[in-house]
Amino acid sequence: MKILMTGFEPFGGETMNPAYEALKLLPENIAGAKIIRLQVPTAFSRCAPAVEEALLACRPDAVICVGQAGGRTCVTVERVAINLADAGLPDNLGAQPVDEPIRADGPAAYFSTLPVRAIVKNIREHGIPCQLSCSAGTYVCNCLMYELLHRSALFYPHIRAGFLHVPFAQEQAVDKPGGTPSASLATIARALELAAEAVVKAPRDDLQEKKGLIC
Amino acid sequence: MKILMTGFEPFGGETMNPAYEALKLLPENIAGAKIIRLQVPTAFSRCAPAVEEALLACRPDAVICVGQAGGRTCVTVERVAINLADAGLPDNLGAQPVDEPIRADGPAAYFSTLPVRAIVKNIREHGIPCQLSCSAGTYVCNCLMYELLHRSALFYPHIRAGFLHVPFAQEQAVDKPGGTPSASLATIARALELAAEAVVKAPRDDLQEKKGLIC
Amino acid sequence: MKILMTGFEPFGGETMNPAYEALKLLPENIAGAKIIRLQVPTAFSRCAPAVEEALLACRPDAVICVGQAGGRTCVTVERVAINLADAGLPDNLGAQPVDEPIRADGPAAYFSTLPVRAIVKNIREHGIPCQLSCSAGTYVCNCLMYELLHRSALFYPHIRAGFLHVPFAQEQAVDKPGGTPSASLATIARALELAAEAVVKAPRDDLQEKKGLIC
Amino acid sequence: MKILMTGFEPFGGETMNPAYEALKLLPENIAGAKIIRLQVPTAFSRCAPAVEEALLACRPDAVICVGQAGGRTCVTVERVAINLADAGLPDNLGAQPVDEPIRADGPAAYFSTLPVRAIVKNIREHGIPCQLSCSAGTYVCNCLMYELLHRSALFYPHIRAGFLHVPFAQEQAVDKPGGTPSASLATIARALELAAEAVVKAPRDDLQEKKGLIC
Repeated sequence: MKILMTGFEPFGGETMNPAYEALKLLPENIAGAKIIRLQVPTAFSRCAPAVEEALLACRPDAVICVGQAGGRTCVTVERVAINLADAGLPDNLGAQPVDEPIRADGPAAYFSTLPVRAIVKNIREHGIPCQLSCSAGTYVCNCLMYELLHRSALFYPHIRAGFLHVPFAQEQAVDKPGGTPSASLATIARALELAAEAVVKAPRDDLQEKKGLIC
Repeated sequence: MKILMTGFEPFGGETMNPAYEALKLLPENIAGAKIIRLQVPTAFSRCAPAVEEALLACRPDAVICVGQAGGRTCVTVERVAINLADAGLPDNLGAQPVDEPIRADGPAAYFSTLPVRAIVKNIREHGIPCQLSCSAGTYVCNCLMYELLHRSALFYPHIRAGFLHVPFAQEQAVDKPGGTPSASLATIARALELAAEAVVKAPRDDLQEKKGLIC
Repeated sequence: MKILMTGFEPFGGETMNPAYEALKLLPENIAGAKIIRLQVPTAFSRCAPAVEEALLACRPDAVICVGQAGGRTCVTVERVAINLADAGLPDNLGAQPVDEPIRADGPAAYFSTLPVRAIVKNIREHGIPCQLSCSAGTYVCNCLMYELLHRSALFYPHIRAGFLHVPFAQEQAVDKPGGTPSASLATIARALELAAEAVVKAPRDDLQEKKGLIC
Repeated sequence: MKILMTGFEPFGGETMNPAYEALKLLPENIAGAKIIRLQVPTAFSRCAPAVEEALLACRPDAVICVGQAGGRTCVTVERVAINLADAGLPDNLGAQPVDEPIRADGPAAYFSTLPVRAIVKNIREHGIPCQLSCSAGTYVCNCLMYELLHRSALFYPHIRAGFLHVPFAQEQAVDKPGGTPSASLATIARALELAAEAVVKAPRDDLQEKKGLIC
């Protein structure tokens, strides 16, 4: 089994992105699955093509995209991506869409095809806080999640795909206002490892699919 | 023009619901539109039928549903409802679905057909904080919003419909832990009045529709 | 009975200070006591002299100073002022002390001589959230509270004195990041009125004094 | 040089106290100083005697007491302890004082005699968020800090003493509501190690003492 795990470039004035920094700490093999890492441009127009290129080159069984959600207190597993691009700040190529559909002909949303509950359960059982989330925002993270699920729905139905958000790393929070939550890169990396492990171990025909709901 | 405005019954151990209490403070006429108020059961199985019954009886031009989002600091205008029922606590009839689709044959999500930006703008221009939100949660609020948008998409395409969340009323926060945000019912009512005003004044063929995006 | 109530000038880039704006909404007479309002410079060197001048001119029975605590969710009643000036931003005269004692020869702290529990109780019984606080910070608010209690301890022992902090007004929060808490000026003014009422009604020889603790 | 570092027993229904769990991870020697660890009862009447007994037995040069502050996002260094015991929940012996002085004949407050800024600086320079705090609360933590500073002021003036608060450990936050901040025990232990290092390296006649302010 192969799992493609992606993390974004730093954005919004940060000098690091905890998503990709944590991925660098992961072992090359998790629960028997080969882990392939990819850094993705933080740009609406470039993120999905970069991931699709890796899909074609690596032919993974699952894709776990990871992004920074500054202000959240723990790792969160996204349930759903929506067809909306609305950027509070320009992306790394200067694009700043306002209330635009990601795909004019696409559905309003896609649910994650990762075993989101099993991921949350596995991370929590190892003592690390983790929550389900119903919003990946409307910035590049949501855009990548939507595009990935759109393409996998149409062309790669056998690939399980989804998105996790991680808090600021401690190094980023040091100079931010008191009260800004963060986590150590060691903790974030461990949570991502446990997420990959849950994906390896979760049977494909799990509860959600039986119910006709992909979440 | 007629606007149907709905608020839920109290739930989760509360003795009041700020959504409906604030609606009771509204004038019967806002910017020339007649306001019709409806209290809705906080129950997955009953909320949408109650609203549909009122739709048939009143034939409104717009429906603004309102719910309590304890923990939020200000009135928020929901952009999207998702096809997912996942209840952290039982509803008022004892139902507590876990990861169930609201409609097994429904799309993953619907965007609000209210002029969400115009509502936020009008409330803020009158000195009251207001934000767009990308998640109405997965409890009865989201269920009602999804069902309402589903039915209006299929059967009442001329009706603009959507959902606003309001914070706890001050009276509710008094005995909650320090730091629990709240707002006065007077403020909440004023925000809802300004929301209705924005709906009256927003042209139907607004920016969002031109872009092919209903949000 | 006469109560002097003070509020600061706007500071830190704000165009209004909710403390003084709320005081302007108060009646001239509360529970039989005459209310005297005073706007105080937001300046370490000027705040206490301004209040002392009013003390001498008005000879009040109690002094309730009020300041803005942006980020707090409700009105808080300060228990204690500490002998420390440490400014995160310059005051309105450009002074920015770092870790300096307010009075090199003063004690480490003074407890409020207002009936702090009775104030909290009265405000909460009228449906408005209110909390005790153990820190008035280290900016001009704490400085004024310390200086006022220092002077009243030495020279005006019959005057009850203390400090309340209020949240941002809604008008201030409109353009701040989502999640910034605020309250309506009507709510803040009502809470300050109830605070004054509690001061009028609380007997001087209350529980705290019997215990030998002035808080 | 010898440093006594104390951590409390679990309290308030918790099965662990991150303060003492982190102390257990520290090396026996930090920057040349011998580290002595002590677990302290979470009880108003027992905490200070336990520490004083260790003072007499170990004769340390500095005492760093550590406690849990659930809800804070990072390690905080307390500046001041106040003469007030006001317990929101019973301590581990069932005592629950309300608005009582810790010492009827004691001053209103004591400032920490640890080099608080040097501690914050050292922790932050190593990439871990850390803040000064102006309130250690009114529970057993503040009581121990006050009693320790009271005794050292009277009888052990050569001992530097103070208090640090740490967030919930991740294991504690797992089953708490989403949004509850926490830190890994590895991070907390590293911060406490850096605090001890700062105490070893900070000259006694530092800036604060020159100013006549002990903070």
